[in-house]
Amino acid sequence: MIQITLIGSGNVAQHLLSAFNKSDAVQIIQVYSRKIESVSHLISIDKITNSFEDLAEADVYIIAVSDDAVAKVASQLPFKNRLVVHTSGSASMESLDDNNRKGVFYPLQTFTKGKEVDFKDIPICIESQFNDDYNVLKKLADSISDKVFTINSGQRRSLHVSAVFVNNFVNHLYKIGNDICDAHQVPFDILQPLIKETADKIMSLSPDEAQTGPAKRNDQTTIESHLDFLSDDNHKNIYKLLTQSIQDHGKKL
Amino acid sequence: MIQITLIGSGNVAQHLLSAFNKSDAVQIIQVYSRKIESVSHLISIDKITNSFEDLAEADVYIIAVSDDAVAKVASQLPFKNRLVVHTSGSASMESLDDNNRKGVFYPLQTFTKGKEVDFKDIPICIESQFNDDYNVLKKLADSISDKVFTINSGQRRSLHVSAVFVNNFVNHLYKIGNDICDAHQVPFDILQPLIKETADKIMSLSPDEAQTGPAKRNDQTTIESHLDFLSDDNHKNIYKLLTQSIQDHGKKL
Repeated sequence: MIQITLIGSGNVAQHLLSAFNKSDAVQIIQVYSRKIESVSHLISIDKITNSFEDLAEADVYIIAVSDDAVAKVASQLPFKNRLVVHTSGSASMESLDDNNRKGVFYPLQTFTKGKEVDFKDIPICIESQFNDDYNVLKKLADSISDKVFTINSGQRRSLHVSAVFVNNFVNHLYKIGNDICDAHQVPFDILQPLIKETADKIMSLSPDEAQTGPAKRNDQTTIESHLDFLSDDNHKNIYKLLTQSIQDHGKKL
Repeated sequence: MIQITLIGSGNVAQHLLSAFNKSDAVQIIQVYSRKIESVSHLISIDKITNSFEDLAEADVYIIAVSDDAVAKVASQLPFKNRLVVHTSGSASMESLDDNNRKGVFYPLQTFTKGKEVDFKDIPICIESQFNDDYNVLKKLADSISDKVFTINSGQRRSLHVSAVFVNNFVNHLYKIGNDICDAHQVPFDILQPLIKETADKIMSLSPDEAQTGPAKRNDQTTIESHLDFLSDDNHKNIYKLLTQSIQDHGKKL
């Protein structure tokens, strides 16, 4: 059994807690949460603490807090030479405090409160300072996910930036599509099968192979007609920049 | 039985042909294809013609050619007062030739050669000049899809523009994510569960509710660090514009 203590009570912390709760290989020693009630639906109240001083011994301390709070939380831990990892995509492993052995346990997924996800399908990117710690993190990750990757801090950063494009920005394009539909009294639902198929395609085709549309086939008439149709300047600018990007890339092939 | 003739042999034509082949309510009279061999794997060769003059009588003629060729093909048909529809998202119904009764039969999906799709889930947007013709198109659409919508040319245009954002542009963001991963020797596959979940989320949450990331939470440190990380100017520009768009929208809420 790997004994873990989870520090944090946000989305990632809660989803990890649910996953660890189901794992036979993991014993949850404690959860640190500033507000006890944030996680009391997921773990018995005697295991929740809001004081770093109360943290008992564990094999791994997992800091699941916002990216910019990782370093500060790590520096506040009142013990030395234990394995402390964070779950952030953007913080480097080095940003953890030198008092303890460092590692990363980064689940690459978008977590929504109240929407359950199957952790088995979520890639977990692990990294550690020391080989023995790597083995512990590997065992821990394997116990909740089928997709465990060894990823260094540089690679993780590139994954995090890529994730902004394929998740945050993609979702924003959904929003623009939704706004255009709303403005013309068309139910956005009509586009959902297209959204689903667009994502599904990428499982079997490369994005280059999957690319279609007026920009790809250099259909200037349709492009002009779309720009003419769009009344929002911001939508126009995004349309122009992404069309240009598709066309420029096409030329390079 | 509705007797149809399909004009065209591209992606949309081939996927429609497969769907109609399976429908008990439809009899395929002919397929017009400039090259006989383009569709000979889908229909017996005696039903394929490459001459408009050879077109026999049918209840509906479906023009499934590229958007900019619709009007020209419609004007070349050597008969009058029959029901002629196109499958284009961007061409108006009016662009069809006045010699015949006009309609639209627009399946809203991205079709890839060789990748089969379940037509039952594909929204079909129909429109017609005359009520009787509407009923025929409705019956035809119902025979292959569970999602049939009555959509006028203005609404269809807004759907088509939205589709460019949620399909063409989204796929291009996948491509940028892929390029960033390639440049840092990280397998793009790691991002696939995130891509899938991003699309899945939209089935139960609005894009506003689903939005996460540094732009949404105004995390300027991470934004700066990502811009610093990106070496490609085009990627930088897209990152900036979409980040700004997410932030501006956030303010408006």
